[in-house]
Amino acid sequence: MGDLTSQDLAMNSPPGIADIHAAAIRLSGLIVETPLIESPELNKRFGARILFKPETLQRTGSFKFRGAYNKLSSLTEEERSRGVVAFSSGNHAQGVAASAAMFGVKAVIAMPTDAPAMKVGNVRKMGAEVVPFDRFRDDRMAVVRPYMDRGMVLVPPFDDPAIIAGQGTIGLELMAQAKALGVSLDAIVIPCGGGGLSSGISIAVKDASPDTAVWAVEPEHFDDTCRSLAKGARVSIEPGHTSICDALLTAEPGAMTFEINRRNLAGGIAVSDKAAAQAMRDAMAHLKLVVEPGGSVGLAALSSGEIELSGKCVAVVLSGGNVDFATYAEIMAAA
Amino acid sequence: MGDLTSQDLAMNSPPGIADIHAAAIRLSGLIVETPLIESPELNKRFGARILFKPETLQRTGSFKFRGAYNKLSSLTEEERSRGVVAFSSGNHAQGVAASAAMFGVKAVIAMPTDAPAMKVGNVRKMGAEVVPFDRFRDDRMAVVRPYMDRGMVLVPPFDDPAIIAGQGTIGLELMAQAKALGVSLDAIVIPCGGGGLSSGISIAVKDASPDTAVWAVEPEHFDDTCRSLAKGARVSIEPGHTSICDALLTAEPGAMTFEINRRNLAGGIAVSDKAAAQAMRDAMAHLKLVVEPGGSVGLAALSSGEIELSGKCVAVVLSGGNVDFATYAEIMAAA
Repeated sequence: MGDLTSQDLAMNSPPGIADIHAAAIRLSGLIVETPLIESPELNKRFGARILFKPETLQRTGSFKFRGAYNKLSSLTEEERSRGVVAFSSGNHAQGVAASAAMFGVKAVIAMPTDAPAMKVGNVRKMGAEVVPFDRFRDDRMAVVRPYMDRGMVLVPPFDDPAIIAGQGTIGLELMAQAKALGVSLDAIVIPCGGGGLSSGISIAVKDASPDTAVWAVEPEHFDDTCRSLAKGARVSIEPGHTSICDALLTAEPGAMTFEINRRNLAGGIAVSDKAAAQAMRDAMAHLKLVVEPGGSVGLAALSSGEIELSGKCVAVVLSGGNVDFATYAEIMAAA
Repeated sequence: MGDLTSQDLAMNSPPGIADIHAAAIRLSGLIVETPLIESPELNKRFGARILFKPETLQRTGSFKFRGAYNKLSSLTEEERSRGVVAFSSGNHAQGVAASAAMFGVKAVIAMPTDAPAMKVGNVRKMGAEVVPFDRFRDDRMAVVRPYMDRGMVLVPPFDDPAIIAGQGTIGLELMAQAKALGVSLDAIVIPCGGGGLSSGISIAVKDASPDTAVWAVEPEHFDDTCRSLAKGARVSIEPGHTSICDALLTAEPGAMTFEINRRNLAGGIAVSDKAAAQAMRDAMAHLKLVVEPGGSVGLAALSSGEIELSGKCVAVVLSGGNVDFATYAEIMAAA
């Protein structure tokens, strides 16, 4: 115990609302305060007022920049000077690459070989080194370990208080924007991979509005948070499945993110690839927004029947828009 | 002259900045104040700071709601009760249909048979009656004349002071948003069909910042405003051409819009369909915005070499995002 530093303690404590406010100050002027967008047509379809928070319009095309930049800010100058390393299917990768470029430090990102070409290309354009790995066969920690051994600092994708606090700034914005519109939110629906986005937002939302229901949405067969919430303990999904939602293919919730989500979430919802593709088309036609498969699952969940919508006001986070032309064209053409 | 009413005089006078401020008050709370969006990648490519004004996110998916609603507001209750009639390839149609629905009055819209299915479908969904006509063979005024004879009020697509003033509210927003960012705009680049959008915005921009250059952008072969500006008088394009930019296929500038544009515009630029399609892909990849062909020509014009960009701050209006799935998929797949 005598060896435990304040940094170690901070690393192991989940963030609170004060950490999210501090992150918002660090990110101010660097992030896009994404607007709330709604569609009369979708409001009519769902019999509700649906307010979309398009993090597709965020720097790097997804919410991930918020957490990554906040994490890099929380490092000492000496730590940053050693460079940073991360593993990610692409959105966290871009968030880390952009943040590292802004701090002028080296970044190495391990990315699965089947990551969308646009995501890999963007990471390289921002000056980071990409190390490919096999999503199904390789241990991603083993891939990044040699870089950590050389002193580079790991920027985890979700299970980290600074990452969670950064993503939580979306919750602060959402609550302020809803207030400015004069509405109170009955529910907030959030795409979920490892749970960093939902846990961060839930802290900010529950602080301002304890009665607002917070939902996490996952792809079918990758519904580890759904199952863990139902069981009250972390469980992993069975391997062997695939999904078009490349950003959400995590096997189990984070320890810290799940502790927060267990306290704050109303529940989890799993949606099919077919429903995600339909939500991408709905976003194209009614919101004029390009949303990637994983980014669209919150909108897809509105059709699941699991969230009470009639007469309610519900916010939906569209978490990312980084999708290859060919994939997007195929999904649009299937209308 | 004794028969000239104040309404006739108003109809014949171009709007001024006071009319645009009045329109902004009427539209307040009904329109989306569209945000400014930028892309580090596009900024780097053009060596400039490019601020996009996405009217794709506007109610009905294009800027046209602003002018249409302002026009309907300017009618007397008795006039509105007779219903409204318009002709449009689709965006003005949706603006008029949405405005008529909000006022609870009947709307009849003449639309070309080759209008995008999404535009026709949206107009019908909003409760308006669609009367098809042949873009190449029919006289559109002859199509709407019977409805006007029955007392319905024509809502012209561009050559009308209330329409121009409504579109001009974009200029007010742009200047206020640029000021809030602490930047001054060197140029503003605007898609142009009949000139209602560019003339309206130019009034607001020149009032606040006389040195800001305002550019109109048209599709190749439909560059009537370009040619008219060069000649100093209204000229028509030669018939027989087509373009993917269905929203911008006007044969000649409006009388009133051209009078304003002649005073206020730096010039006109014509872009190819190929350049418009590339701009749609750039908007998809870097802005995550769905932009229709005609809505993308301002972005396309940045690559024309006709606008000085190096080190400048330039606003680009993305005027609409109503494009059919099949067309959009085809253009995305051509990347």
